Amino acid sequence: MIIAVDADGGDFAPRELVRGAVEAADEYGVGITLIGKKAVLDMLGRRFGKKRNITIVEANQGIECSESPVQAVRSKPDSAIVIGTKLVKDGKADAFVSAGSTGAVLAAAFLFLERIKGVQRPALCGIIQINPQSPVLLIDVGANVDCRPNQLVQFGQLGATFAKQFLYIDSPRIGLLNNGAEEIKGNLLAKESYQYLLKSNLNFIGNVEGQDILQNKADVIVTDGFTGNIVLKALEGFGDTFMNALGIGRSLKVDQQLQGTALVHYVELASMVKRTDYKEYGGACLLGVNGNIIVAHGRSQSRAIKNAIHLAHHASETNVVDAIKNSSYLTK
Amino acid sequence: MIIAVDADGGDFAPRELVRGAVEAADEYGVGITLIGKKAVLDMLGRRFGKKRNITIVEANQGIECSESPVQAVRSKPDSAIVIGTKLVKDGKADAFVSAGSTGAVLAAAFLFLERIKGVQRPALCGIIQINPQSPVLLIDVGANVDCRPNQLVQFGQLGATFAKQFLYIDSPRIGLLNNGAEEIKGNLLAKESYQYLLKSNLNFIGNVEGQDILQNKADVIVTDGFTGNIVLKALEGFGDTFMNALGIGRSLKVDQQLQGTALVHYVELASMVKRTDYKEYGGACLLGVNGNIIVAHGRSQSRAIKNAIHLAHHASETNVVDAIKNSSYLTK
Repeated sequence: MIIAVDADGGDFAPRELVRGAVEAADEYGVGITLIGKKAVLDMLGRRFGKKRNITIVEANQGIECSESPVQAVRSKPDSAIVIGTKLVKDGKADAFVSAGSTGAVLAAAFLFLERIKGVQRPALCGIIQINPQSPVLLIDVGANVDCRPNQLVQFGQLGATFAKQFLYIDSPRIGLLNNGAEEIKGNLLAKESYQYLLKSNLNFIGNVEGQDILQNKADVIVTDGFTGNIVLKALEGFGDTFMNALGIGRSLKVDQQLQGTALVHYVELASMVKRTDYKEYGGACLLGVNGNIIVAHGRSQSRAIKNAIHLAHHASETNVVDAIKNSSYLTK
Repeated sequence: MIIAVDADGGDFAPRELVRGAVEAADEYGVGITLIGKKAVLDMLGRRFGKKRNITIVEANQGIECSESPVQAVRSKPDSAIVIGTKLVKDGKADAFVSAGSTGAVLAAAFLFLERIKGVQRPALCGIIQINPQSPVLLIDVGANVDCRPNQLVQFGQLGATFAKQFLYIDSPRIGLLNNGAEEIKGNLLAKESYQYLLKSNLNFIGNVEGQDILQNKADVIVTDGFTGNIVLKALEGFGDTFMNALGIGRSLKVDQQLQGTALVHYVELASMVKRTDYKEYGGACLLGVNGNIIVAHGRSQSRAIKNAIHLAHHASETNVVDAIKNSSYLTK
């Protein structure tokens, strides 16, 4: 298995991208194709102990977050985002991970991989693993900021397929993110989507409020990409605040002073806070295109990249793309 | 000062409402008017040690969350929500606190207190106090689920006035909740609102992403009531998850086993988690009507009610309503 990695994208590129890729290559035994400026990647690769399962592909054009995504992708064939997406299209990579411009990654995926037949709008599926026994999928987390009700139903269908295939959940419970529990609650989009979801082929369990997200009420929580993006980042920011205030992650030396129950509690709390961190799940899966695309955070450092590669690896291994192609949820 | 309290609204009415009111009356020396079924309130009042600064007003009709708010308010003049709102209108109470149907509380406020001149849409202002040195206002958190860009500007103006008057912030920084930092980011509403906010009389600092909410980037974060409600509840749910897992709040007996730095860290972390809890700030302030209305959580227990009364007290004391009437931010 080969995972292509955009070594040119994100706030900490290329250094942290290379470091995360080397760690992932070692830990998961997966082949990595690093895409970026060859000389720099060679140098960094040597520093981090790159082995034979990592190859480097040259890319010399950069795409900025402020650029128009479609225009950038069309005019920059020698960018890591375009090259990585094409590696997936040509079967030379099983998945592509990028922490670069989300808009450009989506544009490249739509342009080169194309949508799976029957999928109107591919969506980004985020994974919230604060409780490791009951991960929650949030979809969409940023691909579609303005949505129609039937699109939210399809996000539910994509999410349900992903939950079955990737998380091995038999009949995933689908909830609608809303500002109240009752059927009459919501903005225009949510109210109408509720009715569509009721009539759909999904195991729809009704509205899910903000405080229910982590309460294991639904396996898949459906929302528009604007709300989903803000909620996901708010949860992450929350974790950051705790970690920064207490230095969790940097070191756990405080533990050495703890004994007995207190130690157990402290470690439990610290590890819970850590799981809120985006670095722990690495990225979101783009569902609905003909290939595995993982969008990692712009501010990803090595651990986030390593985990995004792990996500890409598991998505390829469980064959998410074929599952969506053959999904009984998606009406063809 | 008299605070009217709906003893009939919320999941834990009337018991926890009475308990919270008695605690608030003792702690803040404020006069309380409890509204609900007199016999029950008398009995509970005796149990919790009610003193002379608490009076009881009879209300015999109940309003359910599933009822149409406007219809319920019009047809139930003998409900606690209607009576409490009218006490404020008639100057017999300085503020009204309810954990009952938010829709009905808003409907009663619009109907009986009316909007302040120049205010298009009153909005609910939530207070996030995870970092006590830099509380953040989130507006709207649920009064207006479908909004237009000029309404978001007015939420900013209401929030800025509240921040000055209630939190003593001189030139409050106003941010727009969005799914990206760049000006081009957002759904249709956010993109257009950004341009309106740029041209407004506010100290607009640009977009605020989910992870920035707790980072002290803005004093007032503007958003539609759908997104605001979900984000606020998601942050609260996050706190709940931590507290439930670790038993914080129930008891802090684990602390007794800690020493030195570990103790400091644990207490700091625990108190941080506690501050995410809605019980700590009690409720949201309805801004833009001629009276102080505090909407408390439906699941409020005594501590949340006590804190909502404290919020009502401080809003009356700082004369938020007059400040909005005379606000230089609001174009008349």
